[in-house]
Amino acid sequence: MQNQNSPSLPANISRQELQEIVRSQLLVLLEQEDLRGAKALLVPVQPVDIAAVITELPAVKQAIAFRLLSKDEAIEVYEYLDSNVQQALIEEFKQQDVLDIVDKMSPDDRARLFDELPAKVVRRLLNQLSPTERQATTLLLGYKPDTAGRIMTPEYIALKESLTVAQALERVRRLADVTETIYYLYVTDEFRHLTGVLTLRALLTAGSEQTVADVMKREVVIVRTDTDREEVARIVQDYDFGALPVVDTEQRLVGIITVDDVLDVIEQETTEDIYALGGVESGGDKYFQTTNLFQIARMRVKWLFILLFANTATSAVIANQEEIIERVVALAAFIPLLIDAGGNVGAQSSTVVIRGLNLREVSVKKALSVITRESLVGLLLGVMLGLAVVVWAYFLENSWEVAIAVGVSLLAITLLASVSGSALPFLFSKLSLDPALMSAPFITSVVDVLGVSIYLWVARVVLQL
Amino acid sequence: MQNQNSPSLPANISRQELQEIVRSQLLVLLEQEDLRGAKALLVPVQPVDIAAVITELPAVKQAIAFRLLSKDEAIEVYEYLDSNVQQALIEEFKQQDVLDIVDKMSPDDRARLFDELPAKVVRRLLNQLSPTERQATTLLLGYKPDTAGRIMTPEYIALKESLTVAQALERVRRLADVTETIYYLYVTDEFRHLTGVLTLRALLTAGSEQTVADVMKREVVIVRTDTDREEVARIVQDYDFGALPVVDTEQRLVGIITVDDVLDVIEQETTEDIYALGGVESGGDKYFQTTNLFQIARMRVKWLFILLFANTATSAVIANQEEIIERVVALAAFIPLLIDAGGNVGAQSSTVVIRGLNLREVSVKKALSVITRESLVGLLLGVMLGLAVVVWAYFLENSWEVAIAVGVSLLAITLLASVSGSALPFLFSKLSLDPALMSAPFITSVVDVLGVSIYLWVARVVLQL
Repeated sequence: MQNQNSPSLPANISRQELQEIVRSQLLVLLEQEDLRGAKALLVPVQPVDIAAVITELPAVKQAIAFRLLSKDEAIEVYEYLDSNVQQALIEEFKQQDVLDIVDKMSPDDRARLFDELPAKVVRRLLNQLSPTERQATTLLLGYKPDTAGRIMTPEYIALKESLTVAQALERVRRLADVTETIYYLYVTDEFRHLTGVLTLRALLTAGSEQTVADVMKREVVIVRTDTDREEVARIVQDYDFGALPVVDTEQRLVGIITVDDVLDVIEQETTEDIYALGGVESGGDKYFQTTNLFQIARMRVKWLFILLFANTATSAVIANQEEIIERVVALAAFIPLLIDAGGNVGAQSSTVVIRGLNLREVSVKKALSVITRESLVGLLLGVMLGLAVVVWAYFLENSWEVAIAVGVSLLAITLLASVSGSALPFLFSKLSLDPALMSAPFITSVVDVLGVSIYLWVARVVLQL
Repeated sequence: MQNQNSPSLPANISRQELQEIVRSQLLVLLEQEDLRGAKALLVPVQPVDIAAVITELPAVKQAIAFRLLSKDEAIEVYEYLDSNVQQALIEEFKQQDVLDIVDKMSPDDRARLFDELPAKVVRRLLNQLSPTERQATTLLLGYKPDTAGRIMTPEYIALKESLTVAQALERVRRLADVTETIYYLYVTDEFRHLTGVLTLRALLTAGSEQTVADVMKREVVIVRTDTDREEVARIVQDYDFGALPVVDTEQRLVGIITVDDVLDVIEQETTEDIYALGGVESGGDKYFQTTNLFQIARMRVKWLFILLFANTATSAVIANQEEIIERVVALAAFIPLLIDAGGNVGAQSSTVVIRGLNLREVSVKKALSVITRESLVGLLLGVMLGLAVVVWAYFLENSWEVAIAVGVSLLAITLLASVSGSALPFLFSKLSLDPALMSAPFITSVVDVLGVSIYLWVARVVLQL
């Protein structure tokens, strides 16, 4: 279905549609047991798309489809599969087939797979890997999760300073098939200390009589094996590197992290951040793959209870001042409106500050100026919203006192929300707590409790109760 | 300050600290008018860090610091500066210096700069660029913002199928200094139609008598000039490519997009998504650089008014049923608690669904199963929270009827919130509206209005009013 001489996507088809078409055609061919046709169908398809197609097949057909692939393609496709499909295939295959694939995977993908497998299976596989691969894997698994050490790969090219450019290029050619990338080359001394870096571009454009030492850059941006992976992603993003070297505590080169792995890290970290803003404990990126409803409820109930507990204060405040509401029942009508408006303003302020902290656009040093700015904006917004709400309250209840009480309260609540919405993330960042997860419940609670108190106090004053 | 023979970051210093140290030392040297010392200070520092340091200098010192750099480094650093610093420097410099830098920037960075400059300045600069650069720039600026055409660069290497591997490598060497990347090479025919792609790795490891046609892959993943940049980022992330070719409607190759530009796109798009979830219209990534408070208020007031308007319904509902509250004033105490709990549950559901839609982890096809799952989880959570709240309400008001009314309402509200929180994003996605921006206000309003109605109705039944 793809023209051999044109780009693989016709002008009007999306990748999802492509995968859907391949999947249904593949199913038909497998039903007809036309394995040759199925194999031919998959030849021009990208490994990433093959993996997506296989994931969507019925479980019984996945192993059959996978076996259609050539050895090299099978390994590539395997690395792109979802981990539950990877596990299912491991159980399907004969020992030897499994071992071949697992042995040939790149070490970082293998470590990621082993992280998901049951410990028994991991032990068995580890024992049967070739010695070099076993060593590479246990090295990676030895590092804490979410650190550079865990996501790096030891398959890099190291050069000696004394090599000529011609010799270096020859070494690159020889190792090209067994390394993660040949575009970034690292220079080490005899003790494996990292002394320099050069790109393949620099090597190719240098004179062949020059040495590696002439071409390389001695200022190398590095990360350590215990560097947090979020920091790694930030460095790759800021410096626009295609790969980063990872050193141990002795400054010896132990691995590299390539930008494509960083893209995955960024996606997972962003999901965690977004979940945190919404009050959901992250289960990795597995929310929609988790089938156990109790597990999902557990991811969510913790923060709901914390918020519920914090919000009980609002009911205590109101219960304590019930006589005001008894006197002017109309006041009750505006409680949701006021605390919702406060919550919305607080959410806006905290959202931009939390994101700004994450991207290093603002720092705790600048907290005061940011909070001042947010307060002024909050005042502005409070005046605009307050006027609108005064009009509405008068229309609803036909009482200027109630309307003014509501309007003034809204102004005060909006100001309060802006201040707390912008200040609390800084405070939590300073206390080394995650601003995203910690601030939202506190901000809502602060705004609600104080907001309700302000409202009833203002009402008391305005209505001279 | 950096040891020439060791990696540039000592084991215990962060990049922020490094930049801070360089900045303060630089300021001291500039005050003393020691330009030679200042120049030497900057030699081993990465362009990205120099740009960050210059950005933090007082405005009057920025131009002086910038002039310390060599021509090549100046261009690199300039591309990394914030756009307001880029603009300030343009006004500072002599015509010719500005032109030299702007002329030598890579076309995609130049297009990005021109997007920010006043139109008058852009016209003047455009007219004075060299013809090739002017053509490259107007080409890019001719495309709609947020499309592949706008973020691509025309500086790629194209090869003919008939070249031998040796000839191809020679061409790569010759063009290495003027192209964005030499690691991905594109094969075109005499009409510039894209016919294949090959990596430099493949070229280097091929036999030198082979031709490009032997080595290249004919299945190429492409994007078109009008492809949305979010889609471009998704493709690069999924396929792990270092670069993507961009073709026009005739399938002719017009440019490439490299992964480092995609990283920037991802960051900006993520900020937009996060802002949308928080109810903030995005001003690009300029929230903290905007100094006009009225502009900021304008970014935020629109959604606040929409939400306020939607929330007026809650006050109408309560005002309409004031007699219930008159009869049992204790009921008013729990209004904030109930709608807050509903809002939190709704926010959780919508957050995970919106993020899932964004990452293509769920699609509208699966809407029914996702909503069902969320409803069941909502029921589970509602039971847990409801029991807790019944205990609290009884403790506060000493009335079983009120406690039961509150508990049953919480259960109903939680279920309602889960359903609307998961369903509305799918609905808006189906209507081609942005789920993130559209759903949150509707979900809060639906939960609040219906929640309050449910509460007063349940109270009426339980208390037999």
